[in-house]
Amino acid sequence: MKQLKDKIREEGRALSDQVLKVDAFLNHQVDPVLMQAIGKEFAERFKDAQIDRIVTLESSGIAPAMMAALEMGVPFVFARKRKSLTLQDDLVEADVYSFTKQETNRISLSRRFVLPGERVLVIDDFLANGEAALGLTQLVEAAGAEIAGVGIVIEKSFQPGRDKLIERGYRVESLARVAKLEKDHISFVEVVR
Amino acid sequence: MKQLKDKIREEGRALSDQVLKVDAFLNHQVDPVLMQAIGKEFAERFKDAQIDRIVTLESSGIAPAMMAALEMGVPFVFARKRKSLTLQDDLVEADVYSFTKQETNRISLSRRFVLPGERVLVIDDFLANGEAALGLTQLVEAAGAEIAGVGIVIEKSFQPGRDKLIERGYRVESLARVAKLEKDHISFVEVVR
Repeated sequence: MKQLKDKIREEGRALSDQVLKVDAFLNHQVDPVLMQAIGKEFAERFKDAQIDRIVTLESSGIAPAMMAALEMGVPFVFARKRKSLTLQDDLVEADVYSFTKQETNRISLSRRFVLPGERVLVIDDFLANGEAALGLTQLVEAAGAEIAGVGIVIEKSFQPGRDKLIERGYRVESLARVAKLEKDHISFVEVVR
Repeated sequence: MKQLKDKIREEGRALSDQVLKVDAFLNHQVDPVLMQAIGKEFAERFKDAQIDRIVTLESSGIAPAMMAALEMGVPFVFARKRKSLTLQDDLVEADVYSFTKQETNRISLSRRFVLPGERVLVIDDFLANGEAALGLTQLVEAAGAEIAGVGIVIEKSFQPGRDKLIERGYRVESLARVAKLEKDHISFVEVVR
């Protein structure tokens, strides 16, 4: 997705060869026009996938999931990293290790909002080691629903997340695939579509 | 906002005379069409307020802030409840006590994304005791920007949040104002607009 790659080149910052900072438009400040284009792109890529519902993870997955859900005409649910006092009944849970934060979060989702047999699109902002995306697929499958695909805004293709998802048989669509992070240069995997 | 009040009547659940559960459409599962209408309503109410930017709090503020920002043609920023390894520089911070979770969270925002002199609309999903909204106004003012208004999706009008915000001179627009929660009945403050 050219518009996204241009934005990453212009406003993304490679903090190291592993860490890409995109807080200018994706996970702190958010560019709503870009997010709308991202929603349209997910809708286009998954238009034949008969999606019933989108599942994402708080917080940075919410804006892209919101726009994709609006475009596709389906509801979305965001899995929680912490339990709230008003969200305790009938949960499915999974443990997700964050390499960035160096901690394990138990993520959860209410069975009331992911129904057996539904075809679910998992959306997340980043795919690196695949921990968050795999945790989300576990929640969806524990609730008896089916993974119709995984949609990622930015994939760090030099990390193993994509391969882990493909190995499990999931369709993965990443809107930008970062091949390499260098201080003054961010390069992308060239994909012929 | 009639559409929102109808939704609260149909799908909201009063867990007690204090707690309203709206995880079916606002803070776990999200109805994107309702959220778009909420964005349009905020844009309409604040159309003369010369808003430069929207500031909200993760996680449940993100969807309504996203749609309001898209309608108003401005960026939004979501304040963080926890620091990430890639978000540490040049922060403004405030402490926010959550009565629901019975804990204090330090919320933070980067000064890079709230600029001195900007007119900021603060958006949040709920207004109860006002802790979160007041924390957000503190962040914005610490960054040197100005509060142009506070937009709330659901206000519990029997709790003191609204009065605290009004006392400080802020304009408050709540799309649904809950007067009273009873087991089988949710009543609203009638507002003549």
